[in-house]
Amino acid sequence: MNFNRTDAGLARELDAQDELASFRERFVIQDPDLIYLDGNSLGRLPRDTVARMRAAVEEQWGARLIRAWNESWFDLSRELGAKIAQLIGAQPDEVLVADATSLNLFKLAVAALQARPGRTQVVSDVFNFPSDLYILQSAIALLGQRHRLTLIPSADTITIAPQAVNSAITHDTALLSLTHVAFKSAFMYDMAAVTARAHAAGALMLWDLSHSTGAVPLDLNGAGVDLAVGCTYKYLNGGPGAPAFLYVRRDLQAQLHAPMWGWFGCQKPFDFTPDYVPADDLRRFLVGTPPVLSMQAIAPALDIVLQAGVERLRAKSVRQTEYLIHLAEQWLLPLGFTLGSPRQAERRGSHVSLRHPEGYRINRALIEAQPPAADFKVIPDFRAPDNLRLGIAPLYTTYSEIHHAMARLRTILQERLYERYPEERLAVT
Amino acid sequence: MNFNRTDAGLARELDAQDELASFRERFVIQDPDLIYLDGNSLGRLPRDTVARMRAAVEEQWGARLIRAWNESWFDLSRELGAKIAQLIGAQPDEVLVADATSLNLFKLAVAALQARPGRTQVVSDVFNFPSDLYILQSAIALLGQRHRLTLIPSADTITIAPQAVNSAITHDTALLSLTHVAFKSAFMYDMAAVTARAHAAGALMLWDLSHSTGAVPLDLNGAGVDLAVGCTYKYLNGGPGAPAFLYVRRDLQAQLHAPMWGWFGCQKPFDFTPDYVPADDLRRFLVGTPPVLSMQAIAPALDIVLQAGVERLRAKSVRQTEYLIHLAEQWLLPLGFTLGSPRQAERRGSHVSLRHPEGYRINRALIEAQPPAADFKVIPDFRAPDNLRLGIAPLYTTYSEIHHAMARLRTILQERLYERYPEERLAVT
Repeated sequence: MNFNRTDAGLARELDAQDELASFRERFVIQDPDLIYLDGNSLGRLPRDTVARMRAAVEEQWGARLIRAWNESWFDLSRELGAKIAQLIGAQPDEVLVADATSLNLFKLAVAALQARPGRTQVVSDVFNFPSDLYILQSAIALLGQRHRLTLIPSADTITIAPQAVNSAITHDTALLSLTHVAFKSAFMYDMAAVTARAHAAGALMLWDLSHSTGAVPLDLNGAGVDLAVGCTYKYLNGGPGAPAFLYVRRDLQAQLHAPMWGWFGCQKPFDFTPDYVPADDLRRFLVGTPPVLSMQAIAPALDIVLQAGVERLRAKSVRQTEYLIHLAEQWLLPLGFTLGSPRQAERRGSHVSLRHPEGYRINRALIEAQPPAADFKVIPDFRAPDNLRLGIAPLYTTYSEIHHAMARLRTILQERLYERYPEERLAVT
Repeated sequence: MNFNRTDAGLARELDAQDELASFRERFVIQDPDLIYLDGNSLGRLPRDTVARMRAAVEEQWGARLIRAWNESWFDLSRELGAKIAQLIGAQPDEVLVADATSLNLFKLAVAALQARPGRTQVVSDVFNFPSDLYILQSAIALLGQRHRLTLIPSADTITIAPQAVNSAITHDTALLSLTHVAFKSAFMYDMAAVTARAHAAGALMLWDLSHSTGAVPLDLNGAGVDLAVGCTYKYLNGGPGAPAFLYVRRDLQAQLHAPMWGWFGCQKPFDFTPDYVPADDLRRFLVGTPPVLSMQAIAPALDIVLQAGVERLRAKSVRQTEYLIHLAEQWLLPLGFTLGSPRQAERRGSHVSLRHPEGYRINRALIEAQPPAADFKVIPDFRAPDNLRLGIAPLYTTYSEIHHAMARLRTILQERLYERYPEERLAVT
């Protein structure tokens, strides 16, 4: 992809050519002067979700009361899972929606370690979500500290070399647990190659797809992936803290044992028998009653992603991240920024990290801009120590927004506007 | 309490004297011909919750996007916990809202067993929620099957004798885990006495308060309770599958170790450090990102309970269950029903179980009644083998509804209307 121009006219031309442009209208855009580049943290609110939530609250809960469990709610975990299955190359009965990503990771990690009893190594990498590493640490602790956690290093802080993966995995590896697209650098693994490497060593492979699902095409069945988890509130737009999904390959489902046994995971939850008999399918990884209202927000959002198609979303995402990097190369790298993401699109997810020693204050300058200094705000996010993350959500991000945001960043650097903002950090950045 | 009459006029008089009657107007009553006696399974929708949910979806998520985490969401677990603390006799920093009841029970049960390393017995009872028993079984399995689960028996299927509790607890008991009000019979333990018995043996005490909170006064601090969990979707009216709460007595918080470590449980979640440092307070029992939309529904519902006051709710509940039992004694016991709940109000929660061999079909006859045979429906619920549960939710249940429901039950029995309904069971009953 080659962009020769940096003028706003090119952005408008690219928007005019965008076959997915109309999907932006499917979302609530309250403030047209807000350029939202944080869809990789919390996706925007779909218009259909507004109506769905009113119906869930007023028509289902309010009017149908307990009857809504049979009529609308009892199979939500499976119904949502079947939709997500279409986005990740899985079968409908291989995916469920329930609980938080970290909890699902715990369930699958413990099950995996118990399925490889002779092996004592768990492998992850230095790019993984801290929460994923904490969960792996707690699984190891709970199983009696018989395993050790090895983290694959990064030579350049942006990518992980295939050789580094190969070196970390041994015939003592029980589980390889990685996040497919790294939350800081957006580095994306070759899922099929890494999974094959884990399998060659006899290890189980667990992918966290939180930064991948809905943004990049995935083929879990094609890659022979054993286990996966992922959130639904980023590129899937399922709402704040929306319950997460878990995937277990069909032939593993009856072999693996869930570590927490609750009534939603037993074969016949409404028999109320005192001894636990696990469901003979993936439902055994359910535990308690799901948070129905948060679950209800997910379906309309998934339908939009399915209608747009992940292949088309990925094509636009690549084009938009390339465009963003093109402008960064022209305008920002000469002013002290460095690219914190892989330069090759095929090794990158749907966000771009730009690094600068003053990244935190630059982030605040973007978010807190006020007229007349700026006639719009930009919301990216910041990840320590110096990563400004710019998330591209091709369902609603426009080329013109990218152009505005990058031009604004240039102004902030040129005029040192970030110096007006303090260093102190807010709780959620 | 003594009710001499069975006429509808008395019910109307009791409603007219009810100081809590106006609280019914705080709830959405879509169908005035529906007598809802299942608030102990899923509480009604508060009117304020409708507005709160619209604001959460449209104003917070839709308009504020990621900024709403700092503005409105990040402390929801603690804010909701502090409200619940007022209902259960706890300090504001002793209660958090997060995850499902079963998951919270798992966290606390594992932490408790690890805090009593030399002891090998877990004690519960035959009345406990099956899900609670499953969770205890899974905690034992995950910790290497070093514990055995002992269930306190019931001599009469309705109550548990203090002597049976005493006999089950030994100096090898690590944990006594009981549900305070039994989901079938509504039998209610003497919390202070049982807790003292557990402590005398050196065991930790964990109460499931799902059928108690918002219905009966609780004094966890006064009873010296160590640990507790409970749901928010029954008498608290927090919405379908609303996240649950957990309580850990303050002086135990830093001693107990959570079994699952996620980013919401670490001391500084947004430092993104690779090694887990647990929060030095109750937050260590949080794991992943909470389901914000479901969390948002809880606060307006708790405010109603706090305004009504648990003491007043309990007084009305006792009066209403007594009235219900009075009508049952006059009308239903002669027709083959037996009382499945304790006759003494002080040993009973806020529902009444009536037992009949045809309980399931009688339940369906109540729910599925159609004009002209009946001009209203009654929704109780059914718990195998023969319990028809009639839940009193004093915030919105009227004496006239109880009268109508009991009269309808009499008709169903007298005219054998239940014989029109099949034996086959629906998924959720």
